[in-house]
Amino acid sequence: MNYATSAPAAVDQDYLDRIDAWWRAANYLSVGQIYLLDNPLLREPLLPEHIKPRLLGHWGTTPGLNFIYAHLNRAIMERDLDTIYVMGPGHGGPGPVAAAWLEGTYTETYPDITQDAEGMRRLFRQFSFPGGIPSHVAPETPGSIHEGGELGYALSHAYGAAFDNPDLIVAAVVGDGEAETGPLAASWQSNKFVNPARDGTVLPILHLNGYKIANPTVLARISPEELDHLLRGFGHTPFYVEGDDPEQMHQDFARALDTCFDEIDEIKRRARNGDTERPRWPMIVLRSPKGWTGPKVVDGKQVEGTWRAHQVPFSQARENDEHRAILEQWLRSYRPEELFDDAGAPVPSVAELHPSGSRRMSANPHANGGLLIKDLVMPDFRRYEVPVASPGVSTAESTRALGVLLRDVMSGNMDSFRVFSPDENNSNRLDAVLDVTNRAWNATTIDGDDHLAPEGRVMEILSEHTIQGWLEGYLLTGRHGFFSCYEAFIHIVDSMFNQHAKWLTTANDIPWRRPIASLNYLLTSHVWRQDHNGFSHQDPGFIDHVVNKKSDVVRVYLPPDANTLLSVADHCLRSRQYVNVIVAGKQPELQFLTMEQAIEHCTSGLGVWEWASTDAGEEPDVVMACAGDVPTLETLAAVSILRAALPDLRIRVVNVVDLMRLQDRRAHPHGMSDDEFDALFTTDKPVVFAYHGYPSLIHRLTYRRAGHGNLHVHGYREEGTTTTPFDMCVLNELDRFHLAIDVIDRVPRLRDVSGHVRQDLTEALVRHSAYIRENGQDLPEIRGWTWDEGDRERPLPADPPT
Amino acid sequence: MNYATSAPAAVDQDYLDRIDAWWRAANYLSVGQIYLLDNPLLREPLLPEHIKPRLLGHWGTTPGLNFIYAHLNRAIMERDLDTIYVMGPGHGGPGPVAAAWLEGTYTETYPDITQDAEGMRRLFRQFSFPGGIPSHVAPETPGSIHEGGELGYALSHAYGAAFDNPDLIVAAVVGDGEAETGPLAASWQSNKFVNPARDGTVLPILHLNGYKIANPTVLARISPEELDHLLRGFGHTPFYVEGDDPEQMHQDFARALDTCFDEIDEIKRRARNGDTERPRWPMIVLRSPKGWTGPKVVDGKQVEGTWRAHQVPFSQARENDEHRAILEQWLRSYRPEELFDDAGAPVPSVAELHPSGSRRMSANPHANGGLLIKDLVMPDFRRYEVPVASPGVSTAESTRALGVLLRDVMSGNMDSFRVFSPDENNSNRLDAVLDVTNRAWNATTIDGDDHLAPEGRVMEILSEHTIQGWLEGYLLTGRHGFFSCYEAFIHIVDSMFNQHAKWLTTANDIPWRRPIASLNYLLTSHVWRQDHNGFSHQDPGFIDHVVNKKSDVVRVYLPPDANTLLSVADHCLRSRQYVNVIVAGKQPELQFLTMEQAIEHCTSGLGVWEWASTDAGEEPDVVMACAGDVPTLETLAAVSILRAALPDLRIRVVNVVDLMRLQDRRAHPHGMSDDEFDALFTTDKPVVFAYHGYPSLIHRLTYRRAGHGNLHVHGYREEGTTTTPFDMCVLNELDRFHLAIDVIDRVPRLRDVSGHVRQDLTEALVRHSAYIRENGQDLPEIRGWTWDEGDRERPLPADPPT
Repeated sequence: MNYATSAPAAVDQDYLDRIDAWWRAANYLSVGQIYLLDNPLLREPLLPEHIKPRLLGHWGTTPGLNFIYAHLNRAIMERDLDTIYVMGPGHGGPGPVAAAWLEGTYTETYPDITQDAEGMRRLFRQFSFPGGIPSHVAPETPGSIHEGGELGYALSHAYGAAFDNPDLIVAAVVGDGEAETGPLAASWQSNKFVNPARDGTVLPILHLNGYKIANPTVLARISPEELDHLLRGFGHTPFYVEGDDPEQMHQDFARALDTCFDEIDEIKRRARNGDTERPRWPMIVLRSPKGWTGPKVVDGKQVEGTWRAHQVPFSQARENDEHRAILEQWLRSYRPEELFDDAGAPVPSVAELHPSGSRRMSANPHANGGLLIKDLVMPDFRRYEVPVASPGVSTAESTRALGVLLRDVMSGNMDSFRVFSPDENNSNRLDAVLDVTNRAWNATTIDGDDHLAPEGRVMEILSEHTIQGWLEGYLLTGRHGFFSCYEAFIHIVDSMFNQHAKWLTTANDIPWRRPIASLNYLLTSHVWRQDHNGFSHQDPGFIDHVVNKKSDVVRVYLPPDANTLLSVADHCLRSRQYVNVIVAGKQPELQFLTMEQAIEHCTSGLGVWEWASTDAGEEPDVVMACAGDVPTLETLAAVSILRAALPDLRIRVVNVVDLMRLQDRRAHPHGMSDDEFDALFTTDKPVVFAYHGYPSLIHRLTYRRAGHGNLHVHGYREEGTTTTPFDMCVLNELDRFHLAIDVIDRVPRLRDVSGHVRQDLTEALVRHSAYIRENGQDLPEIRGWTWDEGDRERPLPADPPT
Repeated sequence: MNYATSAPAAVDQDYLDRIDAWWRAANYLSVGQIYLLDNPLLREPLLPEHIKPRLLGHWGTTPGLNFIYAHLNRAIMERDLDTIYVMGPGHGGPGPVAAAWLEGTYTETYPDITQDAEGMRRLFRQFSFPGGIPSHVAPETPGSIHEGGELGYALSHAYGAAFDNPDLIVAAVVGDGEAETGPLAASWQSNKFVNPARDGTVLPILHLNGYKIANPTVLARISPEELDHLLRGFGHTPFYVEGDDPEQMHQDFARALDTCFDEIDEIKRRARNGDTERPRWPMIVLRSPKGWTGPKVVDGKQVEGTWRAHQVPFSQARENDEHRAILEQWLRSYRPEELFDDAGAPVPSVAELHPSGSRRMSANPHANGGLLIKDLVMPDFRRYEVPVASPGVSTAESTRALGVLLRDVMSGNMDSFRVFSPDENNSNRLDAVLDVTNRAWNATTIDGDDHLAPEGRVMEILSEHTIQGWLEGYLLTGRHGFFSCYEAFIHIVDSMFNQHAKWLTTANDIPWRRPIASLNYLLTSHVWRQDHNGFSHQDPGFIDHVVNKKSDVVRVYLPPDANTLLSVADHCLRSRQYVNVIVAGKQPELQFLTMEQAIEHCTSGLGVWEWASTDAGEEPDVVMACAGDVPTLETLAAVSILRAALPDLRIRVVNVVDLMRLQDRRAHPHGMSDDEFDALFTTDKPVVFAYHGYPSLIHRLTYRRAGHGNLHVHGYREEGTTTTPFDMCVLNELDRFHLAIDVIDRVPRLRDVSGHVRQDLTEALVRHSAYIRENGQDLPEIRGWTWDEGDRERPLPADPPT
């Protein structure tokens, strides 16, 4: 339990004194950001008007973050390390901003924040100030890939950054508050998925600050033995640094870091020499007081070392002379006169105490992944065409076709592309990728194991949180990825999606942040095909969640078959700075479009399927729209029924791939003009719309359109259980019979003539449902349904459909 | 690492033979459910038509679940334990169904499923069959509180069930797949929140089945030492049972269980004698083959003990003679002729091997909480009235007023009510509850700790997942609770909400499931008041997520002030079988309604605020609607501006508390008729609607209304950062100036006369924004704004507003 057993020689005390000065400077600058509007160097007495009117920010964790930063800098310089710093307790935003300013990066990035008194004044003023920078670590913070708002993702982000970056060190501070979250607790297991020979190193630093907002933390209040068991159980060798005396803590932390980096060197050396045993990676436990070096007591109450130090230790510095005196005393305790010269710049011994250029953690290009990203080497997706001689006759598993494309994307990009899935890669029919790589796995293997290897590039753990965090870290450091997931369970990462989308939105307004690869989701095993799993696995609402975010970062695609899926996936994999959501089935299903047709259809995002329509280019009686594979199938089957029963009916079939096309141009860049929309959907004819998800979304996207009152949407109504695929449609009235009945009910001129057809359809519904309940499967005529060209009046058009 | 050191004497072998017979019977019935349509007792040769056409269900985990069930029954009988069984691997749904049938509960619950051959045939047929029961553990499963679809919540549900049930044992099986999830990983820490003297006992059983869908599990592939460290690190004393030989495994598991229950007895005894040291609760690690006792090899490939046993071990039993022969051999290997009598009932030695009555885990009333629930002893919420002499003049922190009510709900229900929060109880201003109880905490305490005690009833851990799981478990076992959370981070449990709402929806159709208390969310620290935390903490979309679920289980309230919040909270706390979402601010804010007015307003759910309107009961020029505290404030301020500038303008102010009132009656039971809606909102006048969340939701709820085309919604547009409260409104165009300008732009008769007013308002916006950016705070005239009655033409109406 003590690093001392293998401790290297003590670090030179003079050097540690300089580190202490740097730390004091960073702490001074942190407190200044929280409290000061002006008088940054305290060269005048501190007056009320120097204090911010609203005191925002989190002091409690900041001195610890700064302490670690200072020591990492020593190691980086001594060992020429390539290091980024992931700060789980990102509420301590003033810390990395202070460090970046001391390292010069801040001024390089934001030239108006100069390294002098005026720059320091601006640095302080802008923090948590309207028009300034956020209070947490954020995209605005140089050197960060990790927003400090929602807790839980420090380790998974860190591992994502480390994959395929063999020489990178990712120092990851885990706050003891964050450590209580589920996503963080799960992500400790990430070390079973690291290949020491080909991946970088994550150095976890568990910061036992002791308190959350108002409570002690669990890990700070279990016995040292229990904690040591836990961390060894996570597969680490922990080293402990505990105390509050800076001098001792500097010595101890420096030695602990040296020990860790020595061990890491040894692990990497062994791995490169072929040692395949999973290493027990070193980590550090830093136990230091919350709000360390801050005011000990305020208003008679202990602050340092308690939850009272979590945010601002006292809030009346502007109004209350005593508080203001405490603030001044606190700031002066860092001895700013020793740290900053007459101009307000850091004195040389402080200013020089950091690595140079891109070795500075605040300037490491890995933390601005768009600087490093390379285009994927993409095969021509047209080569993966699923042959379609005629629409709606042959079947294929669409995602299986995609798997072959992904296999070749993988083999062309074996150092910058990975696929991610919560134990569903093969279930989702993407197993072709295992032809060229394995699943990442550095835990024990036994005979009979299937495609497990430390160098595997298929990332599977049964934690959507860990998967999402890994992928985000991988993308933010300039690589590419693809996440396949059961549709219902992607909600597990709703809040992580939120944070990533917000990161992208903010980054779009930051010129120095370069665009990164899009986060690509394939949602499959979707709501309509949960034959095995039933109601708990049915939820198509992630789309609804996604479209609440800024339209310039979200895209939603519902390709109805394999070739459209391939075209969409190619587009998404090449794109930047989006979250792309693709929803597609994995079950054998009818194929409709040739590759040439698919490309044209996907390029326009939606369009009339003339081969399925019976309006012959005239004004239709009804528009039957569809989005999603199952709704498309049922729509075509309904058309087929109606065509046979009511040959004069003029039906226009519109298929939608790119859902955002339905919105108007003001709401989304992909949106159609009203003229385009009206030309497709008419302004006065009924539109029976079969949609993959909750019907309200289609209304939400189209409520401004002239013909919106004529739109009747069928979709998931939260009805379901373990039953047959067709019965699922019936339960939710998305099936061909309900759709056809709806058409009859909506087309005025049919009302008097089609009573018997309506009756037949209703009887068919009853007959099918009875058969399903009796036989446990769908009638052969449903299961075997194909699009019958013979019924058509006109031949297939020579031109591809538009 | 071995329980043997303290092992009690071996269990009688004859008894274990009977347990083995019971286990074989449960396994036989499980396989039958997955595969058989008919010929349940194999009294004829197995023919294709006896096999289900679609083979659904998960065999892999089922024999382990049955094994544990059999052994728990022995302990329950020997020790007269009150026990429920939480099966994390709930995909193994056939297991508990088989057990319930053997125990007689199934027939008591579903009388058509008799304990004979015909009943067995029906039992088999209904499983995963259209019109039958789901493939997973579900509300339909007697004895369950835990849906087996989405993994991760076994332990948190178990602890929720154990709180305040001092004599209850909750045996909780954690699958090694589930153990990889974030929520499960976090929930191990729950043992720091259990009071051994007053709470029940959770006995975790980690089932190392070895495989997930397609991969080995992490915990099965770390070294035994690492696993032992991990479990001790979680605060447990683990006992290990490992092997595949049933005879040995029966002996070992029986002894391990005896050891655990002896230790639990000792822990409870010590605790009741005042020992306050946190116990290291025993737990069991069961390492057994996946698909244990199933076919070893199929088609030349190993099945038992591999991922191939996860679902159905082979799928062609109907079509393929060889597979069918394997099935028959497998079923016969359980020797059904020894287990079931001529009639098909279990033979006495099997039939009697279970506890009686409500001691049967399948019939324990704790697993049907509505049987046990008692109404809360509720104080009269009117007593907590915040005095309001005149609307919009005095301020209060609304949630602080609620805290006082919750305090007294707590003190009246000290064994059946708890409040839950992820470390935000005090931040959310509910600290009054700490006057009568403490925070639950059984880890180390030190001087200066604030309200921590093992018997505390304020449940705080920094894991929304654990909080939600505890609360669900607490409610499902018949108690009451209240969850307060930062609004943005409730998305962390989106998927858990989904599953709970689905449980309620399904339970509503199951007569024997009695209604339980509603799950009450207070979402505060909401999007408009993230002054500290900025963009990452801004997301009002949980409401959008919630309304996708069945309307008969979801309710959404946006009380604008303290008295409306109290009225709404009283209603929610008394309700059953809903998820209630209350969104309310915690910051000081203007108060509008007296308690009497608030009750009337909340009872109707929405209504005209006549005191704020200027239409004097006539046809208005414009309706200004508002929902949420900040939108209400800005709407009233806009009315005030417009009233001064355009005294002839007839404004009707409509405030919405119960959001579901906006829907039509077909869509939600609270929905208004079109006539009611039209009478409030008109069919032809512009409606400027200030809404708390994403504007699209209001369109979604109202798109069918006649006047929908006139509705102009202001809400959160995903714009924000760390800035002032008013600036947040301006960024999203929800502020008084934007609202007033929108009124001017929408009311036709103002277009020609109000150019100067519009100009003034635009200039005011510029002036305010400049002030904010210069001074870091809002102009005093914004911060200090109150509703000025003096401007009104008419006195406050004598009658309360409707």
